Amino acid sequence: MNKTSVVLASRPSGDPTAGNFRLETRPVPALEDGQIMVRVIYLSLDPYMRPRMTELKSYTPPFALDAPLTGGAIGEVIESKSDKFAKGDIAMGMFGWETISIVDARGVRKLDAKAAPLTYHLGVLGMPGYTAYWGMLHIGRPKPGETVFVSAATGAVGSLAGQLAKLKGARVAGCAGSDAKCSFAVKELGYDACFNHNARHDYDQALAELCPNGIDVDFENVGGPIFHAVFRKMNDFGRIAMCGAIAEYNDERPQPGPDKMFSIIQRRLKIEGFIVSDHMRDMGEFMRDVPAWIAQGKIHYRETVVQGLEHAPQAFMGLLKGENFGKLIVQVGEAPK
Amino acid sequence: MNKTSVVLASRPSGDPTAGNFRLETRPVPALEDGQIMVRVIYLSLDPYMRPRMTELKSYTPPFALDAPLTGGAIGEVIESKSDKFAKGDIAMGMFGWETISIVDARGVRKLDAKAAPLTYHLGVLGMPGYTAYWGMLHIGRPKPGETVFVSAATGAVGSLAGQLAKLKGARVAGCAGSDAKCSFAVKELGYDACFNHNARHDYDQALAELCPNGIDVDFENVGGPIFHAVFRKMNDFGRIAMCGAIAEYNDERPQPGPDKMFSIIQRRLKIEGFIVSDHMRDMGEFMRDVPAWIAQGKIHYRETVVQGLEHAPQAFMGLLKGENFGKLIVQVGEAPK
Repeated sequence: MNKTSVVLASRPSGDPTAGNFRLETRPVPALEDGQIMVRVIYLSLDPYMRPRMTELKSYTPPFALDAPLTGGAIGEVIESKSDKFAKGDIAMGMFGWETISIVDARGVRKLDAKAAPLTYHLGVLGMPGYTAYWGMLHIGRPKPGETVFVSAATGAVGSLAGQLAKLKGARVAGCAGSDAKCSFAVKELGYDACFNHNARHDYDQALAELCPNGIDVDFENVGGPIFHAVFRKMNDFGRIAMCGAIAEYNDERPQPGPDKMFSIIQRRLKIEGFIVSDHMRDMGEFMRDVPAWIAQGKIHYRETVVQGLEHAPQAFMGLLKGENFGKLIVQVGEAPK
Repeated sequence: MNKTSVVLASRPSGDPTAGNFRLETRPVPALEDGQIMVRVIYLSLDPYMRPRMTELKSYTPPFALDAPLTGGAIGEVIESKSDKFAKGDIAMGMFGWETISIVDARGVRKLDAKAAPLTYHLGVLGMPGYTAYWGMLHIGRPKPGETVFVSAATGAVGSLAGQLAKLKGARVAGCAGSDAKCSFAVKELGYDACFNHNARHDYDQALAELCPNGIDVDFENVGGPIFHAVFRKMNDFGRIAMCGAIAEYNDERPQPGPDKMFSIIQRRLKIEGFIVSDHMRDMGEFMRDVPAWIAQGKIHYRETVVQGLEHAPQAFMGLLKGENFGKLIVQVGEAPK
């Protein structure tokens, strides 16, 4: 039996290109004790994968060259040498960008295919959703009447972050990369205001209009000049939940931070970087709250599903440019019936 | 009766110069109800005064032009229209840079002249000491075996910050502006290592030598290129207590922040700016701990006392260049017998 994989052919310098990826077909190796063989169905594409393509000191080791890329994914167990899984189980874990993935069963979770649409487990009910939940509620901690800003307002993380801030009674503004996304943010997600950062580049002026009372909480997904403008607009005792910096991941040379960092003192700002995998033990509240809010219609959710593993590299390159709308998923194989 | 004052003649642009200050003699106005008249004895000079000389959006309003500068000070009450104070009391508050100051008695504290040397109340037992205490113990929170870095290691704040980190079992490194200060830091204050930032400018290399295991807590007093090098050296889950940025206060154009701020995410750093006056209600522990530690010889303290109000501007300009050694105080009038 053969499998098809997307491997990292070379490390991107600046924007990733098609040449950094290679599709290859190889025989599936034999299963060892404790492992399961999974037919991959859905593959999550996330911005954090970009830094892992370069050899950086990072929280996760870089992707290996000439090996399949990996990521959060859902698949069907087709062979098991683990007591945890039987053939036919639906499983979620870190699988390869490939049609068939063999992994250690530890760290893989069984999914109830009836509880929610499967893809939700890679988005609003999964890592991106919990990222929004942790960052907004544990670091941002918006209070009623405060102003919250969310960059990448309609992305997999930002869309939930903004809605959570609204549920906490804050005024929520954001930015997104198209008028359609901004319209979605306001009409569907309940943002009070949103500007298209590809249409207007006078970020200071845009923020002055959108956030007349300044910004108390920044949920930062983008970095770069937008972050710098937000930083200038932060109110005393403001909190910045540093979640991502998609605008900087492709930079060949690192960008300088915002001017006059010492205003952090005068404004008593708190900036905190976080990675949600540090907080998996505290996931209970999230798993209780968010499915209930979705069921009650309090949380809206949108995703883009790209068909075919061979399109994963192109979809990933588009993700870094904001071409997706909502959570980006690649469908690699047929969904279970 | 006349008083002599140092007034702000013009706002400094870049390094303050003698021309930004003016000595003037005026009649002392009549005392109003609720006020006290104080013969100023000791005046505290602190780096935070520099931003107040410029019209910045800041936590404290800027100093007014052509009015006496103000600061933490100690004096003897020579006339009182307040029930709180009697003639002869020793009082600490925000007084003018002047020989005689008239202030509202609210916010002025009576001192027991026998409890500790009076000047200590402007240093290790006062605002700078509590700043070190709050920042190190509430934000830095060093654990035994961790590495702590303190810039301006022997300054009014840094000298206590470093000693507190040692008391908590951390390895403590710092930098200071002369070999004599570094020697004092290591031999008297108990720092494990200290480098002279005026003698060597290869900060990355210096930190690599002084902090071979990276930095877990940065108590930031200096800002600028030293801060950037420290930022690069921060370990995962590191904490940065942003207390001051003396190297940036004279900048005419704001300096950019450290490169690649988004590594805050990968390293899960926390950066928190603070101003100790926000935390005056929690001063109890500090007032209990630090005098006891001084009495037990666990805390060493050093100050420079400049004689004469007329030398305050020069002493302040020197403070911004690190010319003082330890806490800088101006003696304006005779100490009580």
